[in-house]
Amino acid sequence: MTVFAIVGHIARTDGGYSLNDLPGSGGRMDVLCRCVNASFFLSHDLRRDVECYLILCGEPAGPKTVKLSGSTIRSLSPDERSAGALIKKALDTVCGNEFREAADGIRVRKGGLERLMTEHTFAVPDEHGADIRKAGTLPDAFLLSDHLNFTEAEELLIKDCPRYSVGPDCLHADHTITVLQNELDRRRSQWT
Amino acid sequence: MTVFAIVGHIARTDGGYSLNDLPGSGGRMDVLCRCVNASFFLSHDLRRDVECYLILCGEPAGPKTVKLSGSTIRSLSPDERSAGALIKKALDTVCGNEFREAADGIRVRKGGLERLMTEHTFAVPDEHGADIRKAGTLPDAFLLSDHLNFTEAEELLIKDCPRYSVGPDCLHADHTITVLQNELDRRRSQWT
Repeated sequence: MTVFAIVGHIARTDGGYSLNDLPGSGGRMDVLCRCVNASFFLSHDLRRDVECYLILCGEPAGPKTVKLSGSTIRSLSPDERSAGALIKKALDTVCGNEFREAADGIRVRKGGLERLMTEHTFAVPDEHGADIRKAGTLPDAFLLSDHLNFTEAEELLIKDCPRYSVGPDCLHADHTITVLQNELDRRRSQWT
Repeated sequence: MTVFAIVGHIARTDGGYSLNDLPGSGGRMDVLCRCVNASFFLSHDLRRDVECYLILCGEPAGPKTVKLSGSTIRSLSPDERSAGALIKKALDTVCGNEFREAADGIRVRKGGLERLMTEHTFAVPDEHGADIRKAGTLPDAFLLSDHLNFTEAEELLIKDCPRYSVGPDCLHADHTITVLQNELDRRRSQWT
């Protein structure tokens, strides 16, 4: 199982955003939708062994955590609106402190990074980290940030996480996930 | 300069598609929009040394070729709608056989793959090709297909193109571009 978690610092935490304006009304929900795409899609197939957490920290009800599970998810297409509609459905679901299913393979609960950090051991992609290609073994859970840097409070939470770099250039979160998936694919298939 | 060209087999060739339905009314224009994103975006920066050609083969006026130039493009955001709106503007521009500018950094002309093949020497990402990481030198122009395979007529045109594989799994075109960019970035910075 591979796990990706992405912090959406201003991502809307109810369904009150427009699919026609994911960047604005969704609080850069477009970034998170592309991360969902990069986490799950193969050509004509879905990665069933992936879980993706979206940690939404924006107005009006943050933080909330949305969990997408490749093993059970349905009705997910590669376009941003498709992921945006699924997330909207989750955020329209009344939830408490435990995950509640909103649709096949998508669940939602209150709470954010602090709790998720107690449940998974994350590595953090970081341009100053160790080269992912040279790492002896790779972690199976990665925590990324959206278009904004981690906050000081988040940096404190993740200060002991190992850091890996995917290359010499600083990439968008979804592109980073794609490169990580490629490295994991190669190792699984003994291509490297 | 790095060049990416993507064939959109059913991509709409006038501006008569809805930004609210890029997959349907746009003839899978969403795929091409994600390829534009993968071609140009770095975190908080644009790759100015990239050109991206979209070869649109759908109704009602195909084929047309849209050229996006990183050196001069403006008003491009990472979300699919942003690229979709720029492409729409190009397709609403009356054009002939030579490129005509529709907005900064985006041009359009009639004609498709056959002509573009006389202007660039393309390599083709192919799951059965040589491993890109093991290639001595890399090409600087890549031709990809959208969600459909190349047609028989296209395969004839590209039969002499070198083929490279990015990994053991068959990826979406935009993910393939992201992995190719990562390999090119690493080589330019002598990271490999």
